[in-house]
Parts: sequence; structure tokens; C-alpha cells
Amino acid sequence: MVDQERKVTVKAPVNIAVIKYWGKKDEKLITPINNSISATLSIDDLCATTTITISSNYQEDEFWLNGEKQTISDNKRLSHCLVQFRSLKSNINNHLKIESHNNFPTAAGLASSAAGYACLVSALGHLFGITDGKQLSILARQGSGSACRSIYGGFVEWIAGDDSETSFAEQIVDDNHWPSLRVIILIANDKEKDVASTSGMKRSVETSELIHHRAEKVVPERCIQMRKAIKEKNFTKFAELTMRDSNQFHAIAQDTYPPIRYMNDVSWSIVSLVHGYNEFIGSTKVAYTFDAGPNGVLFMEQDQVGQFMTMVKQFFPFTNQTDGLFRGEPIPQEEIINQSLVDYLSKKLIIKENSLKGIIYTKVGCGPKIVNQQSN
Amino acid sequence: MVDQERKVTVKAPVNIAVIKYWGKKDEKLITPINNSISATLSIDDLCATTTITISSNYQEDEFWLNGEKQTISDNKRLSHCLVQFRSLKSNINNHLKIESHNNFPTAAGLASSAAGYACLVSALGHLFGITDGKQLSILARQGSGSACRSIYGGFVEWIAGDDSETSFAEQIVDDNHWPSLRVIILIANDKEKDVASTSGMKRSVETSELIHHRAEKVVPERCIQMRKAIKEKNFTKFAELTMRDSNQFHAIAQDTYPPIRYMNDVSWSIVSLVHGYNEFIGSTKVAYTFDAGPNGVLFMEQDQVGQFMTMVKQFFPFTNQTDGLFRGEPIPQEEIINQSLVDYLSKKLIIKENSLKGIIYTKVGCGPKIVNQQSN
Repeated sequence: MVDQERKVTVKAPVNIAVIKYWGKKDEKLITPINNSISATLSIDDLCATTTITISSNYQEDEFWLNGEKQTISDNKRLSHCLVQFRSLKSNINNHLKIESHNNFPTAAGLASSAAGYACLVSALGHLFGITDGKQLSILARQGSGSACRSIYGGFVEWIAGDDSETSFAEQIVDDNHWPSLRVIILIANDKEKDVASTSGMKRSVETSELIHHRAEKVVPERCIQMRKAIKEKNFTKFAELTMRDSNQFHAIAQDTYPPIRYMNDVSWSIVSLVHGYNEFIGSTKVAYTFDAGPNGVLFMEQDQVGQFMTMVKQFFPFTNQTDGLFRGEPIPQEEIINQSLVDYLSKKLIIKENSLKGIIYTKVGCGPKIVNQQSN
Repeated sequence: MVDQERKVTVKAPVNIAVIKYWGKKDEKLITPINNSISATLSIDDLCATTTITISSNYQEDEFWLNGEKQTISDNKRLSHCLVQFRSLKSNINNHLKIESHNNFPTAAGLASSAAGYACLVSALGHLFGITDGKQLSILARQGSGSACRSIYGGFVEWIAGDDSETSFAEQIVDDNHWPSLRVIILIANDKEKDVASTSGMKRSVETSELIHHRAEKVVPERCIQMRKAIKEKNFTKFAELTMRDSNQFHAIAQDTYPPIRYMNDVSWSIVSLVHGYNEFIGSTKVAYTFDAGPNGVLFMEQDQVGQFMTMVKQFFPFTNQTDGLFRGEPIPQEEIINQSLVDYLSKKLIIKENSLKGIIYTKVGCGPKIVNQQSN
């Protein structure tokens, strides 16, 4: 057999849910109890990068994460993923070297596993000749549930399905559909210890008396409305559904026993800022959503960014800018501060110095992208 | 007509719900969407006091609250209450002077309206010859919903009913039933502005997609279990139901749009302390409940007070003791601090200096009490 080496590098995006995934139907297969919908974020600002080399020279599979060699057998989901690919393409027996990086610091508290598994699966798919989005989505899902949504750009819906083969993501619209939409992540300073989302959602399914009502009665109708709002670029409707669903997810976390709490005082100040801003303007111009942590992810049209972010700097002033926690294009600032807006918001919230430790200014982007490939 | 003057002074208790009232079926009649259950707290530590004088010499009704004269016509619920009493006893036409006091500072953020209306109604009842608990409860309810529960001591259930005449409180057990039970209120320092409960619950009924499931499916079963736990003095069961129901009420508040938030970072630290303590001990020895504000109300058996409160002082040290915000009997302190308990809790929470501004150490007590009466 001739010496053979092939190599591919893929970048894959983070996604942020606007209709939340919380609760598994099947713990092992990672099928969810309800559909979820997310926006894929631009890989220009946040992404995972994976390089996979397949070579007849390798004696075993290797996995390197952020420059450190990992023990593959310790990582059940990764091992399972490799087994799956090899069973689909049994003619590929050579060993692999997998090198993964996230370009965002762990300190940001941003879920990296979705981008990571979407990246891994896309790279493996490329090498193994599996390019069908549905199939890749099913494979990514088994690594980390929400990874299945990072297989596509734009807005994506994860169809809960009945079993492993019917639980996958579908693109609602691509990343060119709503070009004026902007995403701003406010990274909150946090001293508390969070409950990991895997064990948290398990506890919710087992103990919350509201979660099944949410999954069965509330979310299906919300997904219909959300798809419509996205397709019509109806920001008001999109924003309201996004905020309501974020709140309901955190309500379910609180209804869990013992209760789970991800939003801290800073998160709630962001909530007050957004509602106060919308009230002052007289219509819903900004939306928030919070995942399993205190960071606020905001959506707004481009024309709101300057005025809104001027208020963020007013009420959340910070002195230390940590490297790497400020990303994206420069944030426009208003030259003249709207004093009546400041006065209005001052009635609702107090100034929280150094309660933010980073801001990422980004937008909706494309799915995983091959950035390099070689073969000999 | 002979000069006639009668005077009565009544003290009435505060109550704290263990199955929460949140949501009115009828805004005007103040009938609730679900039953609720509460513990009446001892009037030795917290109470409203009302003196009513009825005299043929008075030219008009007068109402004095905490030493300041109020305009009765501005207070619709009070006026309505007087009209109701006069319609029941149409032979009483003399005017009234009503003087009310709360013995707890407003700064404590403890709901005073329940004790206030229970007190008013009990005093009026005494003067007008209405002593039937059910009838007094219905009258108190129309002043402030949860006031109907302060008509009785011990543990009390407010039956939601179908209309005004069927919505009243009933005693489950009296204040002698569970003498070892203690109640400790941790008054949290708070800078945020709360949403008033009247408007908050209205917003929840209008916007929460979970509240009706709670009211119709969850609470009825919980009330059955709670009555049983109270009657059997099953602390473990009582505690778990109390905590779950507090959490669910706050979950509903968060599911409201815009969301309502009463528990702050300090409240959540109290939650962590309680669950951490129970985990360390290996069984549920302490329970928390939170009303429409950040203060934690804790239940425990007398034998836990020393050890638990030593941990409170460890993790919530405070330097300034505000007058009047420390009440009740002296809190027993452990001579030897359980260091492994401290170490265990240290993994779950950080020390929050001056995050408490008061502690009230009390217990379950009796209903409204006539403390003085005169007639000539």
C-alpha cells in the first residue's frame, strides 16, 4: 500500500438559540423533548477550527484540543463519533490526527461544544466523503445536541424527531436573508459556579412540573411563529418571541429541584436595560436571550447599535478591557448622548461598574467552511 | 340618643405562604386562581395593631396609619370594607376612628397589608358583632387577598372558591400543633425596584404561558400533599413542597412578559446555603420560601437553629445592625463551629458581607387577638 496522507481544515460557527433546547428525550442518542431554533453566528468573530490528517503512517488516532493532547478513550462522545463515521465508510481504516481550537477564551463562558462538534463532523465528513447536511447534522447531534444546528448558516431549526434518524437540523433561511441584523454578546462578570447544562437539563426533565407543558404545548406554537417572524424579517415579533422563550427556559431552570440559576444580578440589569430602552423608544428595538450562563446575547437592527450601545457604556462602564473578550467591528458611538433616554433608564437601573468583562459585536453568518485541504 | 363610645384594640399577624397565591380570577373581588397555604407568624414579633373607636360624637370616619391621617376616599379597598360592614349591620350608623400601626419597619420589605386588613376586619367585626371566621375571612380578602389567611393562627388554607362567598380561608391546624417549628426571616439588602405584587400578578395572568398549568394541574395536588405533611408534622415533605412551590412561583414571575424578578443574588445565595446545608447533613433540615421580594423566610425545627444560623453568620457576616430589623428571641450560636460543614459550603458559595440587613427569629402563632376594649 502506497504512503497516503490527506488533510483538511474546517472552521465552524457557534449558534445561539432563540427557541431554547432544554431537556433530552433520550440521554444517549441526544434527542430533545422539543424543537429549537437558533441563529448561526459569524465565524469571522467566533469559531472552532479543526484540522484532521488521515495517514497510513499513523499508528493510532490522536486528538489535540487547544494544543493539548487528549486521551480519546476518555471522551466517549468523540470515540462514538469516530466509530459512527468508520461504520458508514468501512473502507477507511487509516488513523487520524485531529487538532481542534476555539478562537474564543474559555473565560467568556460561551458554549464551545456546539462549534467544536460541528467542526469535527464537517471535517470528518469531508475526508470520508459524507456531505449530506442531514446526515452530518445527525452525527454532530450525537456529539453535542446543539452542534447539529451549527451545521448550517443563517437561522436553523432542530427538529426534535422521534428517534436518532429523525432528529436533525434544517435551515430556515441562509445568512444572506437578514443582513441588517446584528448580534451583540455582553459577557458578564461572574463569580458563581454554574450547573453544567447536561446535568441541569436532566434534572429539569426529572423534577420540573412545568417543563413538559412547555415542550408539548408552548414550544410547537412558538416555533411556527418564530419561523414566520424570521422569514418575514419581522423584528418586533422575532424579538418578543426570543425574549419570552429565554425567560421561559430560565423559568424552567428555576422550577427544577433543586433550582438552577444562570442569570445573575448583571443579567437582570441587562434585561431591565433592554425593556427600558424599548419602552422609551415605544417599540421593541432590542431583544435579549440568555443561555446556561449569565451572558446576555442581544439582537437588534444595525441602526439601533449606536444608540443602544451608548446606553450600555453609560450603565455598565468598565475600566479593564481583557484581551480577546472584545471582538468584532468597532461599535458605533453616538456623538450626542440622548439625555432623556439616560434619565428614563436611570429610574429603572443603577450603574453597574465593571460588571461586564467583554463585548462581542457580530452578526448571523454561514455554516462550516473548508479553509484548507491537501492530499498526496 | 345617648352619647355612646366604644373602642377596641386588636393585634393581627403576618402570614407567609408555603403554597403561593399568585394570580387573581377576579380583580375586583380578589378571588385567586388557585388555593394557597400559609403559616401564620407569631404576633409577639411581627404584627399590625388597630384601634377602632366608634362614637356618636364623630362627624365623619377617620383613618390614621402609623400616626398619619389618611384620606379614606383615596383608599378604595378600605372604603369598600366599611361599606360592606355597614351593609351587614345597617343599625350601626356612628362614625369610626381607625388607628393602625405596623410594628415592623417598611424597610424590611415585609408585606404589611395582609396583617393590616386582617386587623381592621377583626376589630370592625368585634364592634359590629360579626365573629364568624369565614365571614371575616371573606371581608379581609376583599381588602388584600392574603389577609384572609391572617384571620386564623397556625397553618391556614385559602380555598380559591368560585365566587366571593366561596373564597375564604380555613384553618388546617392551630398554632399549638407543631411547637418545635421555627421561622427565621433573613432580610436582604436590596437596591433594585420591585414590581408591586398586585400589578405583577395581573401581568402574569395575562402573559405567562405556564401560570394556568400551575394553577390547574400543579397546585391542587400540592395542596393535598402539603396539608398531609403539616398534619403529620413531616418536616422533610413540608420543606420540599415549600421550596418547590416558592421556586415555581418565581418561575412564573420570570415567565411573565416583561419578566418579573424578586430574588436577587443574595436570595440565591440563601438558596445555595440551604441546599448545601441539607446536602451536607444528608436530609432536608431547612426550607426556604421567597415572596414578592428578596427576603428569605426559612423554616426549620428548633434543634437546627444553632448550627444553621452559625453558618448564616459565617457566610453572611454583617457589621451594622439596624434597629428594629433584628427581632425575636436570641439566636442560639454553636460554641464549636463545624469546620467540615464550613468547608463543604465554601465550595458552593462565597462570603457575602453586609448582604443581610436584619434577622427575625420567630415561630408559628395565633390569629388576631383583642388586646383591649372599652365601652361606656
